[in-house]
Amino acid sequence: MSVKAKNAKKDQDAELYSLGAAFNGSEIVPILEARIPIIDMGFLHSDVCYDVVSVWHGSFFRLKEHMDRFEKSYQGLGFSMPYTKQQMRQILLDMVARSRLRDAYVYMCATRGLPNLDDPRNFEKYQQMFYAFAVEFIWLIDPEEQKIGTDVIVSSVPRIPKESVDPTIKNHHWGDLTRADLEAHKKGARTAFLLDLEGNLTEGPGFNIFVIKDGKLLTPDSNVLLGITRLTVFELAKEMKIEARACKVPLATLRAADEIFMCTTAGGIMPIKSLDDVPISGGKPGPITMRLHKAFWKAHDDPKYLTPVDYK
Amino acid sequence: MSVKAKNAKKDQDAELYSLGAAFNGSEIVPILEARIPIIDMGFLHSDVCYDVVSVWHGSFFRLKEHMDRFEKSYQGLGFSMPYTKQQMRQILLDMVARSRLRDAYVYMCATRGLPNLDDPRNFEKYQQMFYAFAVEFIWLIDPEEQKIGTDVIVSSVPRIPKESVDPTIKNHHWGDLTRADLEAHKKGARTAFLLDLEGNLTEGPGFNIFVIKDGKLLTPDSNVLLGITRLTVFELAKEMKIEARACKVPLATLRAADEIFMCTTAGGIMPIKSLDDVPISGGKPGPITMRLHKAFWKAHDDPKYLTPVDYK
Repeated sequence: MSVKAKNAKKDQDAELYSLGAAFNGSEIVPILEARIPIIDMGFLHSDVCYDVVSVWHGSFFRLKEHMDRFEKSYQGLGFSMPYTKQQMRQILLDMVARSRLRDAYVYMCATRGLPNLDDPRNFEKYQQMFYAFAVEFIWLIDPEEQKIGTDVIVSSVPRIPKESVDPTIKNHHWGDLTRADLEAHKKGARTAFLLDLEGNLTEGPGFNIFVIKDGKLLTPDSNVLLGITRLTVFELAKEMKIEARACKVPLATLRAADEIFMCTTAGGIMPIKSLDDVPISGGKPGPITMRLHKAFWKAHDDPKYLTPVDYK
Repeated sequence: MSVKAKNAKKDQDAELYSLGAAFNGSEIVPILEARIPIIDMGFLHSDVCYDVVSVWHGSFFRLKEHMDRFEKSYQGLGFSMPYTKQQMRQILLDMVARSRLRDAYVYMCATRGLPNLDDPRNFEKYQQMFYAFAVEFIWLIDPEEQKIGTDVIVSSVPRIPKESVDPTIKNHHWGDLTRADLEAHKKGARTAFLLDLEGNLTEGPGFNIFVIKDGKLLTPDSNVLLGITRLTVFELAKEMKIEARACKVPLATLRAADEIFMCTTAGGIMPIKSLDDVPISGGKPGPITMRLHKAFWKAHDDPKYLTPVDYK
């Protein structure tokens, strides 16, 4: 291809992929063209696990940890994937390169997949599928709002118990989380925290929760996703000599917190300024939260966490 | 079009649609071509409700009741559908006509739909979608097996509680149901019954459950889908002067049953012959179950329940 033709191709691609890129099970396509079969059990029975990893300033952040968790998830569902872990990793790298996104929200999933229409009930013999997409980095809470803190409620909707659906296998069973979010919006809050059926804190729609009391970090140890950002918080706290512990967190402990923050790949470490209209840490981001927040974004320059994308 | 051209078109269509037809949100297509956008929240967050209605010998069975329940479901999720109920009903009729299937399993769903990629978190403004498909009638239990009865287990996986996800809004949150089914298959049984967290009977993967004791029918009144086949059982029992009641059904009541059957659109009224390897009604279909089974299939000739498909 001539240099001119190459440049024309690049321009055309940039237009097509301007909203993002996806892997549709067999090839990389523009995000708006990415479709999955309606009869995929990942849709019909939400028989699917997923993961979300970020790309920041042109590099994946903690890609290894996300791929390891993703592998545990699909193995936990007994899936036999059509690609090796190494191949799926490479698909993600190629997909982000094609999108040309420097800061991206990268989703991947494994589904139970396609039935044999001659024997649709025999779902142990389905053909498993791998799909993915990359769009511009999604901020669960805008950076501007993160500076002042976020208002949340404690939802009246209990989290689906782990006995029914395992939350450590990241899944699409968001019915309870969506109801909680809608409840929060109705009450003028940004989002919601969900309790388990015994009234202990679990997680929110897409994020883990940390409580700070007397200088110590507490986060629920059960009925939650084992978040990679949650893991990073533990590591940063250790470096900063802040005690951090996963344990049961009763609602009373949450309400008595000195500081609260939520954390996720899609937004980082996000301070809470009120809970059910009651100010937390004086109605502004707390000091320990902001130290962790800064350390978290500084870690995005640490090569040990980064996998650079080759944009060519 | 000439007669010859018309016939050629018909033959081509028959080939394309031999495995079924689907409505992909905008048009009717062969089932294997039916795809949905990967970014539809019906997939990503299982933010979707659905319904399944049967076509038997060229007529929909209780289409009105299924459309009414479907309407309640999507209204319950706060969806604003892109088609009226009447239009969706017509799409189903046209889709089945195109498939030429005389006995069909007809699925329809409403999803939260497509985000605005410029504001992906604002899911209250998503564009809702309607999809559907028709494939050959699916027997949850084969007719031959229905003559001898089916082996089931009581699963160790509790049903997702109604406080987290409302089971009367028929949904794709099948994680618990799939785990229960896999547990049953591992133990050599066909399928599983799920209990709630208090140990009362709920439902199974895709079906309601009836217990017969001392000539009376009992079925759970909570944590279950309000099935249309379940409704038909109540109506048939009334005609046959058999007492039938929806109430709490503790595990002990289930184990002490004279007869047990499960029921669903995809298979009708299906007798159970063993529960956790213990024979039920002498290890064969019970007499009241079989009277209801016969009456159920006889009802498929009753014009009051039927909506004929115009195959042209």
